Amino acid sequence: MINVAILGYGVVGSGVAEVLDKNSERIARNAGREIILKRILDVRDFPGSPYESLFIKDFDLIANDPEIQVVVETIGGTDVAFEFTSRCLEAGKSVVTSNKELVAARGHELLRLAGLKGVNYLFEASVGGGIPIIRPVAQCMAANKINEIYGIINGTTNYILTEMGTKGAEFSAALSDAQKKGYAEADPATDIKGLDACRKLCILSSLAFGRHIYPEQVPTEGIENVTADDMRFAASLGCKIKLLGRVRDVGGKAAAYVAPHLVGKDNLLANVDGVMNGIVVRGNAVGDVMFYGAGAGKMPTASAVAADVVDAVKHIHLRKLLSWEEGGEDAATDPSLLESSWYIRTDVTGEKATREFGEVIFADWADGGQTAFKTAVMNEKKVRELIGRGVPALSLFRVLGDY
Amino acid sequence: MINVAILGYGVVGSGVAEVLDKNSERIARNAGREIILKRILDVRDFPGSPYESLFIKDFDLIANDPEIQVVVETIGGTDVAFEFTSRCLEAGKSVVTSNKELVAARGHELLRLAGLKGVNYLFEASVGGGIPIIRPVAQCMAANKINEIYGIINGTTNYILTEMGTKGAEFSAALSDAQKKGYAEADPATDIKGLDACRKLCILSSLAFGRHIYPEQVPTEGIENVTADDMRFAASLGCKIKLLGRVRDVGGKAAAYVAPHLVGKDNLLANVDGVMNGIVVRGNAVGDVMFYGAGAGKMPTASAVAADVVDAVKHIHLRKLLSWEEGGEDAATDPSLLESSWYIRTDVTGEKATREFGEVIFADWADGGQTAFKTAVMNEKKVRELIGRGVPALSLFRVLGDY
Repeated sequence: MINVAILGYGVVGSGVAEVLDKNSERIARNAGREIILKRILDVRDFPGSPYESLFIKDFDLIANDPEIQVVVETIGGTDVAFEFTSRCLEAGKSVVTSNKELVAARGHELLRLAGLKGVNYLFEASVGGGIPIIRPVAQCMAANKINEIYGIINGTTNYILTEMGTKGAEFSAALSDAQKKGYAEADPATDIKGLDACRKLCILSSLAFGRHIYPEQVPTEGIENVTADDMRFAASLGCKIKLLGRVRDVGGKAAAYVAPHLVGKDNLLANVDGVMNGIVVRGNAVGDVMFYGAGAGKMPTASAVAADVVDAVKHIHLRKLLSWEEGGEDAATDPSLLESSWYIRTDVTGEKATREFGEVIFADWADGGQTAFKTAVMNEKKVRELIGRGVPALSLFRVLGDY
Repeated sequence: MINVAILGYGVVGSGVAEVLDKNSERIARNAGREIILKRILDVRDFPGSPYESLFIKDFDLIANDPEIQVVVETIGGTDVAFEFTSRCLEAGKSVVTSNKELVAARGHELLRLAGLKGVNYLFEASVGGGIPIIRPVAQCMAANKINEIYGIINGTTNYILTEMGTKGAEFSAALSDAQKKGYAEADPATDIKGLDACRKLCILSSLAFGRHIYPEQVPTEGIENVTADDMRFAASLGCKIKLLGRVRDVGGKAAAYVAPHLVGKDNLLANVDGVMNGIVVRGNAVGDVMFYGAGAGKMPTASAVAADVVDAVKHIHLRKLLSWEEGGEDAATDPSLLESSWYIRTDVTGEKATREFGEVIFADWADGGQTAFKTAVMNEKKVRELIGRGVPALSLFRVLGDY
């Protein structure tokens, strides 16, 4: 029997309580012992909740309770969450979280502290919601050198882009629709500007490359500038537009960025639609492996947190080797040097485009005065140089593919 | 530092030696210590091999060597492999394998023995080659009740079906082509009759449902009866034909079978082509999760074995909770009771088919004298009863989908 506490009874936190209850039999079998939810910390009251008797407002009752050995942090943010997580680890408790913002900002510090205390800091749910991705990358692919990871890691933007692609909607209309359906927040900036994807990519990059990669090291572009015209031009080129997080190994350093991409319809990621997530990991021995599923949502995310609780319980006296070294300027390198084909939408003539870019592949959907095309393979500096010669880009996106 | 031995220097065994060498840095970092390949057991000689000095022919030199703590079994089959695996576990060594035949036939016995001795028996590579699937199901989805697993788990048959679908080839021609390319064995029976898929499905079923499911409990149909006509009819119904292993929870028992299915083109599995594998796991909290990658091949499989070696090294004094209870008649239930829509190719008229089956969806590709259609949802007994009323089925496959 082991006692667990939950910090923060929001969407994910309440889901964790529910999963621990609903699947208690399978959980106990997998953990090798019964898991008891002893305390829930929240500033709010929840009268009538099935867990009413467990709620407390004083964190010390958890921090100082030696019976509580595993703590679930589902507060979010980096302030209180960091303080409480540190104090739990200091007190010799393992901590499990879905808080991508905290892991991306201070994961290395917290992992180091967990290591010093011989406990675990686990965050499977921080990337891809319920999709197993952290553990497969860290463990199943432990014998591979990872050369590249790319994927659709934000469900909100993927829903919006899917709506734009299938219904011809403009960005603002698709965003309103997503907000109405609860797929986008009232303040959608974190999602649509790519920041959420950036944080998840930082976690994946740190894990795969062994050093902390910080959000500031990852150039991030959101989807606000993708238009319905771009969707139609892309379709005529046999592509969808997807917001990808991508990191590549360049001489042992991580070249990471978040940006919209054209993805060919025969690529597996092209069928990752709506709120779903799909992540491709390229290992030097295994080749490409893809993980697909619901990247967010209360129960998927909660089940991933609960699985980490099981793992923390199983490893209560053993440190999981899930960690990375400290970051620094030399851990990352400039992703603009990565080469690819590019998609350009412009209002100059095809002749002018061909004059500057040489042989290109034109989209054949037509719209008054606009033209769009795919370039040869080149890096960002080169494509911007050619654009500067009088082919102004109304949109400029990379094309995912061979490079 | 930890010493490892490899039993059987065939395709996978030699790949494991190569991966341990090539990715030694990442492996040592992940394992927390250096891994030394000390012995390789094989009846053959390998003069000029980089590991020439490691080869031995006497198994006792491994069994009786206390320095060797982890053994890789890549012999295959169930005779010698079972004997050597048992003896290694008895001697307190962890064993890692890609041998799906042995795990499917005697996994429970070997897991129990490992448990008694406080060591580990790991087999990530036995299903899906290099795709992480065993550990994600066992660990990441530890907080989910698993309701269903289905997937393309044999690369050889998937290659053949893909060739038939894209080139209009008949089965025998596509098989020859696969043999020429090295994707099918000279004796292809194990693959094309579905036996390899059956073994893998047994392992997934045992893991997900907690009791050993034996190959004899899994009705298995191969792809020999799939024709080029079926492919064309299926395409006109918006489907591809894929060999699936599938298991569903029916009242706590496993209803498992292997058979060709029609898969709608908007299903993710429809884009799993060639030698690739794709496996969908449906959890009660997470929903559908898919795993995709190279399901076979020397280096992908070897990298999964090597990752298990890393895990065995990390858990040298801790038992992984990867196991299942013994099987029995009451562990499985009859999959013919599962309901689905069915695809039928017949040589009677559409009118006759409609008379017996009621409203159906006809394929619109035409071929002299044949017709094909999709039925309403029903179980196998019912569909066979209707067929018996004078609508003889030249082909009868389930349609994957809502049920």
